[in-house]
Amino acid sequence: MQVPSPGGREAASMYGTAVAVFLVLLVAALQGSAPPESPFPYSIPLDPEGTLQLSWNVSYAQETVHFQLLVRGLEAGVLFGMSDRGQLENADLVVLWTDGGSAYFADAWTDQQGHVHLDPQQDYQLLQAQRTPEGLSLLFRRPFSTCDPRDYVIEDGTVHLVYGVLEQPFRSLEAIDTARLRTGLQRVQLLKPNVSVPALPTELHAMEIRAPDVLIPGQETTYWCYVAELPPGFPRHHIVMYEPIITAGNEALVHHMEVFQCAPQFESVPRFSGPCDSKMKPDRLNSCRHVLAAWALGAKAFYYPEEAGLAFGGAGSSRFLRLEVHYHNPLQIQGRHDSSGIRLHYTSRLRRFDAGIMELGLVYTPVMAIPPREDAFVLSGYCSDKCTQLALPPSGIHIFASQLHTHLTGRKVVTVLARGGREREVVNRDDHYSPHFQEIRMLKKVVSVYPGDVLITSCTYSTADREQATVGGFGILEEMCVNYVHYYPLTQLELCKSAVDAGYLQKYFHLVNRFNSEEVCTCPQASVPAQFAAVPWNSFSRATLRALYGFAPISMHCNKSSAVRFQGEWDLQPLPQITSKLEEPGPRCPAGRAQSPAGPTVVSIGGSQG
Amino acid sequence: MQVPSPGGREAASMYGTAVAVFLVLLVAALQGSAPPESPFPYSIPLDPEGTLQLSWNVSYAQETVHFQLLVRGLEAGVLFGMSDRGQLENADLVVLWTDGGSAYFADAWTDQQGHVHLDPQQDYQLLQAQRTPEGLSLLFRRPFSTCDPRDYVIEDGTVHLVYGVLEQPFRSLEAIDTARLRTGLQRVQLLKPNVSVPALPTELHAMEIRAPDVLIPGQETTYWCYVAELPPGFPRHHIVMYEPIITAGNEALVHHMEVFQCAPQFESVPRFSGPCDSKMKPDRLNSCRHVLAAWALGAKAFYYPEEAGLAFGGAGSSRFLRLEVHYHNPLQIQGRHDSSGIRLHYTSRLRRFDAGIMELGLVYTPVMAIPPREDAFVLSGYCSDKCTQLALPPSGIHIFASQLHTHLTGRKVVTVLARGGREREVVNRDDHYSPHFQEIRMLKKVVSVYPGDVLITSCTYSTADREQATVGGFGILEEMCVNYVHYYPLTQLELCKSAVDAGYLQKYFHLVNRFNSEEVCTCPQASVPAQFAAVPWNSFSRATLRALYGFAPISMHCNKSSAVRFQGEWDLQPLPQITSKLEEPGPRCPAGRAQSPAGPTVVSIGGSQG
Repeated sequence: MQVPSPGGREAASMYGTAVAVFLVLLVAALQGSAPPESPFPYSIPLDPEGTLQLSWNVSYAQETVHFQLLVRGLEAGVLFGMSDRGQLENADLVVLWTDGGSAYFADAWTDQQGHVHLDPQQDYQLLQAQRTPEGLSLLFRRPFSTCDPRDYVIEDGTVHLVYGVLEQPFRSLEAIDTARLRTGLQRVQLLKPNVSVPALPTELHAMEIRAPDVLIPGQETTYWCYVAELPPGFPRHHIVMYEPIITAGNEALVHHMEVFQCAPQFESVPRFSGPCDSKMKPDRLNSCRHVLAAWALGAKAFYYPEEAGLAFGGAGSSRFLRLEVHYHNPLQIQGRHDSSGIRLHYTSRLRRFDAGIMELGLVYTPVMAIPPREDAFVLSGYCSDKCTQLALPPSGIHIFASQLHTHLTGRKVVTVLARGGREREVVNRDDHYSPHFQEIRMLKKVVSVYPGDVLITSCTYSTADREQATVGGFGILEEMCVNYVHYYPLTQLELCKSAVDAGYLQKYFHLVNRFNSEEVCTCPQASVPAQFAAVPWNSFSRATLRALYGFAPISMHCNKSSAVRFQGEWDLQPLPQITSKLEEPGPRCPAGRAQSPAGPTVVSIGGSQG
Repeated sequence: MQVPSPGGREAASMYGTAVAVFLVLLVAALQGSAPPESPFPYSIPLDPEGTLQLSWNVSYAQETVHFQLLVRGLEAGVLFGMSDRGQLENADLVVLWTDGGSAYFADAWTDQQGHVHLDPQQDYQLLQAQRTPEGLSLLFRRPFSTCDPRDYVIEDGTVHLVYGVLEQPFRSLEAIDTARLRTGLQRVQLLKPNVSVPALPTELHAMEIRAPDVLIPGQETTYWCYVAELPPGFPRHHIVMYEPIITAGNEALVHHMEVFQCAPQFESVPRFSGPCDSKMKPDRLNSCRHVLAAWALGAKAFYYPEEAGLAFGGAGSSRFLRLEVHYHNPLQIQGRHDSSGIRLHYTSRLRRFDAGIMELGLVYTPVMAIPPREDAFVLSGYCSDKCTQLALPPSGIHIFASQLHTHLTGRKVVTVLARGGREREVVNRDDHYSPHFQEIRMLKKVVSVYPGDVLITSCTYSTADREQATVGGFGILEEMCVNYVHYYPLTQLELCKSAVDAGYLQKYFHLVNRFNSEEVCTCPQASVPAQFAAVPWNSFSRATLRALYGFAPISMHCNKSSAVRFQGEWDLQPLPQITSKLEEPGPRCPAGRAQSPAGPTVVSIGGSQG
């Protein structure tokens, strides 16, 4: 009585062998004529060689992304797509390939082993294949969500793009062996918010913060530090916009950049231009941690809302700035010079409100820990109603941008606003968060927070490859869960974070001792990291730690600066009670199906010369 | 920056208003000619009035069910479909309706409020609409799984069918108000196993166990008890098959029937024919609990495997049988007479093996409890490797049928076989289990169990409407988690069940006390139900109880009969460790899409006379 069931693989290969000709696209060769103004506002290089350039736009009305993939020096084809974390397994792909005769374009997917299959539902729709002087330009579209369970759902936040270069013909799609291709990944925020550009003041100045003539080291990863200085007596201004300056030709090497202001207590900071991990780097640069601007690959100019600006200059603030540039140079290219940086646009006509940055999430303390070998362990930090009641103005604050932050095991981050015990809206969510891609992101919608509101920041960690518990802390192997929210008007509240009550954590260690033969020292001299290291990690100790964090009272940090608390009782506070949660974002299935051929499309691009 | 997103409802109504004519089906009027032999082996009445009769067949090769719905006395239409537990919200429907002029047939769905919408993907495919002397016959097909997230996935186990009768035209599908229709549900196993009928012995006798001339009470629910008697000196026989006998006209009233053998220790059992809850019922009937046969609505004849039979008669077994008939009479029809029962087919040529029934799951004890207000709390009972090692023959036993059992809060039941720490196969699974529909089901595939194997039976309970913990026990408001598996060859092992170790449960009450101000009495005189009643149910006490059941050692009942254990140490046994689980059954998406019109089909059946 075995039930024969046609598996996905067999079914897809049935398609592959019966490749039907559905549509021949005409290829126009634009030669010499200048391309019209690009309808694609966003663009990034995919590979470090600069072979593949992706441009795109977003239609929120149609819930569709239009992609333009430029393939320079086309060999025998290319694959491009998306996957959960940039792996080539379980990826959602478009493939352009040739069998030596014809060329084909198709929506495909890879299984857990990375084998390529034709997708029975073709959701990448090819609109144009065009030879241009630069290379082959493919224009295609994809709805955010296709309702095909094998397809990736394009969501807000980070998207891991994957690519591969085909250097030879393949007799069929299924014959493509992804393990033997030149492949890679690129992280990007695809769904850029559709924010209209605020008006800029007429009186506007620009200041370029860039390290002149850096010789990019021939190694995969370099963080370059450079100290810049404001003119003496530079008065208080408002930064209203900033934008990246990328040295031409280095677009694929400059991964992200940040400008920090140094601590005001130091009269001067030594000049420096060199790798941030250099022994020559003056210690004082470590005090330069107040973010003024941040850019990452794929981002465009950052605009402050029309009524707010970020103050810099003037009394009480440091004249010294630190620029940090992350060069990502996997091909270890030698001898490349770079002067990339950030251009700050500022005005002396101060806007109505100062913008500020507030830190939400978890206190940096080892009491918050993640057991080892967890795929998706969630820790949550709270900004409680009591703190917002005390510290926020009656008219509220308005969050317009957000930068999520964890260390190496962070996989998802979300901040939710709750009011009256009910979750109301998402401040920022990234379900494909990567610690290697921390941009300041404009919010699609400004979120207003009023006294009495609660902000819950939850981070999901994967410790699948760790043998010991990962505790909270500053170290790169410890963890953080932070959302730096950019808001106005500026308030005194700089930090609104929580951690589990330390006494309840000791009760937890006691109960672990009661249920296990191994012993966790609950004596007062034992450090919390040492106690966590002694926990025998079984299903009970894991589940009860999770239950403890979801139940035990918290200690609130409701602080004016990292050391100064607002007055009040902040220990043994009740965990904010949430009676109604927002729905998890699921794939929204479009009412109509995409009009798409059921098999690959034959494309005439004439063989394998680019 | 609000993102306009076309919601499912609006999109569906766009379809509804633009009703396009795709296909007109010709209706043949078969008048007077006898219908050919039915290609639909299964048939049940849907409604107690007998207006709707559903017949069906199953193609495992095509993973498709063909339905034939006979509508007697058609008024203005009908709706039919499936939903998780028989509710008309979130249901997957076909609707036949008229707007006064034309008649339409369409795949539709209801939302959480029970509003009807056209399904953009039409997966119910109408094959024929035919006027017959009996009524309108609709023939349509549906794949098991459609990959449409709004569609019900037809799975093994119980399916809750829903129906509604339309008594007037509606201008559109969306205008149908399900709350005002005559509606109902019917539970059935749609995916009958495709078992070939075993050969029957030439020497075969039949015995009808039925209560003669019962006057069915005019009340919704009656359990009728009747005592039958084997002839004196009736020797040992093998039952090899049994089948239902339903009095003609009562098909919609007879819900299920069981035949039990009484306990052998009583020389005689008084004659009785009356409601099982009657005060006149002799107590001794309560000792008649050994199942010989069980039938429920929609089931056909039950065949034992060719090499086995169920022994009855002969020395050491009772001559007395109890027949129990459940009459389901929601219309409270008066004066209906019934003589339904079960026909046992038996042989004196004993087959090679005796068949047996073994009880798997949880011991009936209050230590296994479900907190109140849980939507899906899972309890698991184990038949451990140590017990199967001791009690099963080296050649194993072969399970061919299974009857799942819980009390009122049971929602799902599954038994999984594990070997060497890895889950290997499902013995029986019902993800839409209802305590009101407990049939003996043939397995699609015989499952062999060898010494050292582990059988894990897990029940999912919903206590959403309860205020107190639900503890394990015999009472109808207490819970059970049992799988009665039918197997051969008969062994001494009658009962292989477990419960959490009572000492660890006391540790749990201790830890609840440590984390809460309310106090659970952990003194020796407190009963476990009283202790559970004192637990303050919060996220911590719930999660740690769940963790306890997934971690703490168990007490095994590895018994020859309900009171006699196999020799050995059965207390404080380690929970069987499972290192690899079977994948949850997900919707299998067919490689090709159903060839289906994208809107409703116009059907010519000529207005609203049946």
